[in-house]
Amino acid sequence: MQQRNDPAHVVGIDYGTLSGRAVVVRVDDGAELGSAVHPYRHGVMDTNLAATGAPLPPDWALQVPADYIEVLQHAVPAAIRAAGIDPASVIGVGTDFTACTMVPVTKDGTPLNELPGLQDRPHAYVKLWRHHAAQAQADRINELAGQRNVSWLPRYGGLISSEWEFAKGLQLLEEDPELYERMDHWVEAADWIVWQLTGNYVRNACSAGYKGILQDGAYPDRDFLAALNPDFSGFVSGKLEHPVGSLGSAAGTLSEQAAAWTGLPAGIPVAVGNVDAHVCAPAAGVAGPGRMVAIMGTSTCHVMNAEILRDVPGMCGVVDGGIVEGLYGYEAGQSGVGDIFGWFTAHFVPAELTREADDRGMSVHDLLTEQAAGQEVGAHGLLALDWQSGNRSVLVDHELSGLLVGLTLATRPHEVYRALLEATAFGTRTIVEAFTSSGIPVTEFVAAGGLVRNRFLMQIYADVLGMPISVIGSDQGPALGSAIHAAVAAGAYPHVRDAAAAMGRVHRNEFLPDSERSQAYNALYAEYTALHDYFGRGGNDVMRKLKAIRRSARLVREVSA
Amino acid sequence: MQQRNDPAHVVGIDYGTLSGRAVVVRVDDGAELGSAVHPYRHGVMDTNLAATGAPLPPDWALQVPADYIEVLQHAVPAAIRAAGIDPASVIGVGTDFTACTMVPVTKDGTPLNELPGLQDRPHAYVKLWRHHAAQAQADRINELAGQRNVSWLPRYGGLISSEWEFAKGLQLLEEDPELYERMDHWVEAADWIVWQLTGNYVRNACSAGYKGILQDGAYPDRDFLAALNPDFSGFVSGKLEHPVGSLGSAAGTLSEQAAAWTGLPAGIPVAVGNVDAHVCAPAAGVAGPGRMVAIMGTSTCHVMNAEILRDVPGMCGVVDGGIVEGLYGYEAGQSGVGDIFGWFTAHFVPAELTREADDRGMSVHDLLTEQAAGQEVGAHGLLALDWQSGNRSVLVDHELSGLLVGLTLATRPHEVYRALLEATAFGTRTIVEAFTSSGIPVTEFVAAGGLVRNRFLMQIYADVLGMPISVIGSDQGPALGSAIHAAVAAGAYPHVRDAAAAMGRVHRNEFLPDSERSQAYNALYAEYTALHDYFGRGGNDVMRKLKAIRRSARLVREVSA
Repeated sequence: MQQRNDPAHVVGIDYGTLSGRAVVVRVDDGAELGSAVHPYRHGVMDTNLAATGAPLPPDWALQVPADYIEVLQHAVPAAIRAAGIDPASVIGVGTDFTACTMVPVTKDGTPLNELPGLQDRPHAYVKLWRHHAAQAQADRINELAGQRNVSWLPRYGGLISSEWEFAKGLQLLEEDPELYERMDHWVEAADWIVWQLTGNYVRNACSAGYKGILQDGAYPDRDFLAALNPDFSGFVSGKLEHPVGSLGSAAGTLSEQAAAWTGLPAGIPVAVGNVDAHVCAPAAGVAGPGRMVAIMGTSTCHVMNAEILRDVPGMCGVVDGGIVEGLYGYEAGQSGVGDIFGWFTAHFVPAELTREADDRGMSVHDLLTEQAAGQEVGAHGLLALDWQSGNRSVLVDHELSGLLVGLTLATRPHEVYRALLEATAFGTRTIVEAFTSSGIPVTEFVAAGGLVRNRFLMQIYADVLGMPISVIGSDQGPALGSAIHAAVAAGAYPHVRDAAAAMGRVHRNEFLPDSERSQAYNALYAEYTALHDYFGRGGNDVMRKLKAIRRSARLVREVSA
Repeated sequence: MQQRNDPAHVVGIDYGTLSGRAVVVRVDDGAELGSAVHPYRHGVMDTNLAATGAPLPPDWALQVPADYIEVLQHAVPAAIRAAGIDPASVIGVGTDFTACTMVPVTKDGTPLNELPGLQDRPHAYVKLWRHHAAQAQADRINELAGQRNVSWLPRYGGLISSEWEFAKGLQLLEEDPELYERMDHWVEAADWIVWQLTGNYVRNACSAGYKGILQDGAYPDRDFLAALNPDFSGFVSGKLEHPVGSLGSAAGTLSEQAAAWTGLPAGIPVAVGNVDAHVCAPAAGVAGPGRMVAIMGTSTCHVMNAEILRDVPGMCGVVDGGIVEGLYGYEAGQSGVGDIFGWFTAHFVPAELTREADDRGMSVHDLLTEQAAGQEVGAHGLLALDWQSGNRSVLVDHELSGLLVGLTLATRPHEVYRALLEATAFGTRTIVEAFTSSGIPVTEFVAAGGLVRNRFLMQIYADVLGMPISVIGSDQGPALGSAIHAAVAAGAYPHVRDAAAAMGRVHRNEFLPDSERSQAYNALYAEYTALHDYFGRGGNDVMRKLKAIRRSARLVREVSA
């Protein structure tokens, strides 16, 4: 144990989509003393397999597990150096990962792609969260679950995602059965990296619940799996089931090998793995009920704790202890947010605006924001539905698509841009209201993630929600959240709740709603809701029909090509 | 009379929005031998009054009558020179004009702006067709007409336009009553130019019917006018009423002064005035019933003859002898077509595409067309409503606005562009079906105007309509149509029908529908119709609400500015 006067430190490691980031944090107050980022050597393989150059089918997204180890070898020592601390003062390590990101491994945790002769097999690699090629399997899971009226389906807002453990696992079985046979464990990358750090395989409660359909201590049963595919009947017992660790507990201690990789002391506790979005809640000082944390980036993930269990329509999931031990953790999501702004900016902004942005040394986003900010609410006359990537919460329908109404010959790009910003705010309000009307009132809204830097967007959210927006006080929310879990795993705090209070950071009520603008937005939100329900709840299924027509038209093209 | 062996010629003069064009045409076969264009010195005054520089209110659009005389002085002699003919061989002159374009004049036809001391008075000038500042007056006319259930309202599809004679006249009275008092005649520019050529004021049957509410020999009565404004009660009897000439008849003969301006022989017949769109029908060889001619440019005007009188929902008007003497002339319209394509191309196409078009020496329109043409029907997954400029036919509602549905992160500009092209074709099909289902079957569709050069667009129209598209054989349709009327006025043909058959030119069935594509478009058209009726017929009045919100939001801005 350290002396009281020597400050203790923890290291949080955040594994994102393209890189890993390590942050050194002071245990007493959560001060971030130094950080470093290391990009994955192979990035995301979504067109070709790096080892052979072989093309991948559409919607695939793979990664190479060895890239994750490099983050330990490079980012952690660099963060320690940047912090200027003695590595001996580090008392624990915590990690978080994208999810659901799955690694097929042997008994000892060796990824299948590292076995001789398997480097040319796509299914031997990590399936990244945004690998979307298991939709057919997900559809069958949902159809069967609906038919059987299984108890776990409402816990996921009525839909199991193609991104999750079962759909991806079933795809592996059906497309490469031999490889499936050789796989001993189907492991969340969040848990695989902890395994590499400690030598112990412990499943974390967060991804097991949200992505692994572990509810009330049980997975979907053997009979259900057999009905999907007879060869899948042993999936849970043979590949998935494993002891689950609660969040904030230690999965083990740093191994000699991992100590050599990182330069940290061997034997310090390593926290159970976690998911990048969920770990942001304690980073924003949030561990109690009623405070919704929105991690706003290309998409938005909403996480919130509650003392009670309720079915919230269209949520992504509710998991006992899924965010902090002792509370029900709820998750909801918007499948397109920053992605939509980026898409519009990349493809629908004319040369004169990109030139002006260049000339003034600003981004096109900032220029459009500046132009849009000059207008009163509703002055653009536009309304959008934010479904360019489909709708996760609350409609759970990825066949939906984006809509724009109110276009005139006077409509200009910054006006469409603003309408898109507003549409995502209306989408968030729909989610907030779904929670509140299901008996889980949202008492505070806390924003985190890259989009919080857009102050105009944040003000729109405050005005649209009609409630103050608090903002996370860290630019490295996930890594800080992992550091908080490390502190708890190391015994510096008795519970994540206490660590979050001491180490998390939030600017309370940073954006206050303006009552006039809120009132103006209420009128637009009523129109949004009417369109939302008409197109999203069966009043007009044109969006589904257009996607079906699009698919068959593209098929014609491929067949005739 | 000329010898049979000396070919006779006529001159057609087309007065457009920005310039006038003269064409020399051979009477026997309609061959266009030479033409010339002369731009209006003052163009369109829509921001400032040229004489004083004084700013104009929004939605105003004025012109200077003397500019029209310059066309006679420059374009006609130049066309004669270009044709290389002897001016003595010219046996008649015909003209057409934009409409409704109105000139306030004294008893002898002098425009008020030419009177001493009136050049600084905006209301003394020509109100161009697209002067849209009389909407408040038009609204009152429509409200009163609806209350009184007047017989003439259905002849205009239920709505009198702010562009027309009564709304513009009422605005003049109410905003500059002294000037209104000094005005002896409120004259269509189409008739004013004929007055200048001949010394005779003859009202033409086309604009009197379509723009002047002359139906079954009568105008709206004194009582109706008085209810609009007591000082307006004498508008018809005092300012508007005047003998009406049928189309193709002579309004008089070329005066000595006009002969001096043009270099043409004094004493040759000058045809009664006409409207640019309507005169295209004979230019395309169309003078009989059932053949719809669509003049496709920034907007589209549809004209068609029929032997019977029917109320077609949402048409612009039906006038006895409005296109050719002896038949009912029907007019319908789409308020935005080429304008919509231009708007999208100008404001929503990114630098990389404008660069590519530049590099390849082509227009952005052509590049987008090339990219879009590579896709199967429906492959973009999009559907649009073509109401960026509101909807004239068949909904008659300028509070409607454009809509786009089916947007995904994969949507690219050429796909939106194609969806906009298709939307205007769906709009045309809606009009064709309204005529057919009202008992006025459309047996042939003839395209004219600048957009016929876009062959991809024309093919979409053929596929969407499921019928062959014939195309006018002249690039100067209105001027050729005026020349045809000149030939009839000169007695070279007994009727416009005969002259159209000999001198008009059309490529029959230039674009044939592809049955597979037609079938694919049927599915999309069904979806278009569902959206059209939902948003256009009261299912959801979000478009009207957005425009109302937009107006009040902009008012807030102006008031606080």
